[in-house]
Amino acid sequence: MNQSMPISMSPIGIIQTEIGDEDVSRMRRKIVSSITVFDEFAVALTGIENYSHLFVLFWMDRIKSNDSMLSYPHRDRSLPLTGVLASRGPNHPNAIGLAVVELMERNAAILTVRRLDAYDGTPVLDIKPYDHYDLFPDIQVPEWFRARAMARRVDPG
Amino acid sequence: MNQSMPISMSPIGIIQTEIGDEDVSRMRRKIVSSITVFDEFAVALTGIENYSHLFVLFWMDRIKSNDSMLSYPHRDRSLPLTGVLASRGPNHPNAIGLAVVELMERNAAILTVRRLDAYDGTPVLDIKPYDHYDLFPDIQVPEWFRARAMARRVDPG
Repeated sequence: MNQSMPISMSPIGIIQTEIGDEDVSRMRRKIVSSITVFDEFAVALTGIENYSHLFVLFWMDRIKSNDSMLSYPHRDRSLPLTGVLASRGPNHPNAIGLAVVELMERNAAILTVRRLDAYDGTPVLDIKPYDHYDLFPDIQVPEWFRARAMARRVDPG
Repeated sequence: MNQSMPISMSPIGIIQTEIGDEDVSRMRRKIVSSITVFDEFAVALTGIENYSHLFVLFWMDRIKSNDSMLSYPHRDRSLPLTGVLASRGPNHPNAIGLAVVELMERNAAILTVRRLDAYDGTPVLDIKPYDHYDLFPDIQVPEWFRARAMARRVDPG
């Protein structure tokens, strides 16, 4: 494998939401979006309605990326300077977004989902069902992450 | 967005394992692999050692893809014919692999991980920490999935 070998993909669908870009991150858990899968891939959704949760991989085409490899989580300078690969922020070398979403409804090639923190018009790269093999309840996270989650009243485990 | 718009990425690292391709899927839960992140991205791993689990996104460059949009899960014809996007099989329109792995050790730009079901030499596209927001214990899966997991003595929830 050549390190500079380009890898080429094509979108399989598009995300639509009425939420403006500036509110997507903040409202993440409540956002309802639709994913319209292009006609040629519609049959590939067969049976997906039997899952309650999905991984959605998307291409963050509107993120203004920079070459910085380090950032403060949540832009909070009281938190440790962290590598971008050790962060869920958008500034990764390849701008692939990953979200676990709730599948609310499937109507032919259109999926209605909740919790998808992607901007309106974002291209979809892949969809995968989320299952019990993706569940790791006994995880460890940084102390700052745990403290922040507790402050926001989210069970940090 | 143009439906045929190509999206280009470059690998950020490479996966190495001593397990042969033919055993990767079967031995998934026990496989120990190393991920060597290329030098230019090494500093982007800063702090990743504080997480116990990671998402690894990789490019399945050796999968012989076909254009079929439907398949039998686990090649078992007693199971319902299922769309490839409703399956965790490798034959997706974009051959992005997704695994949640256990981070055993970080040594500079080399991560030692367990449970990565990728072939030796596979290019890595992205790494993201797995955290409590990725945990959805109350999921629903197809009945055949549940039955199969129980037969394999995995807690299906």
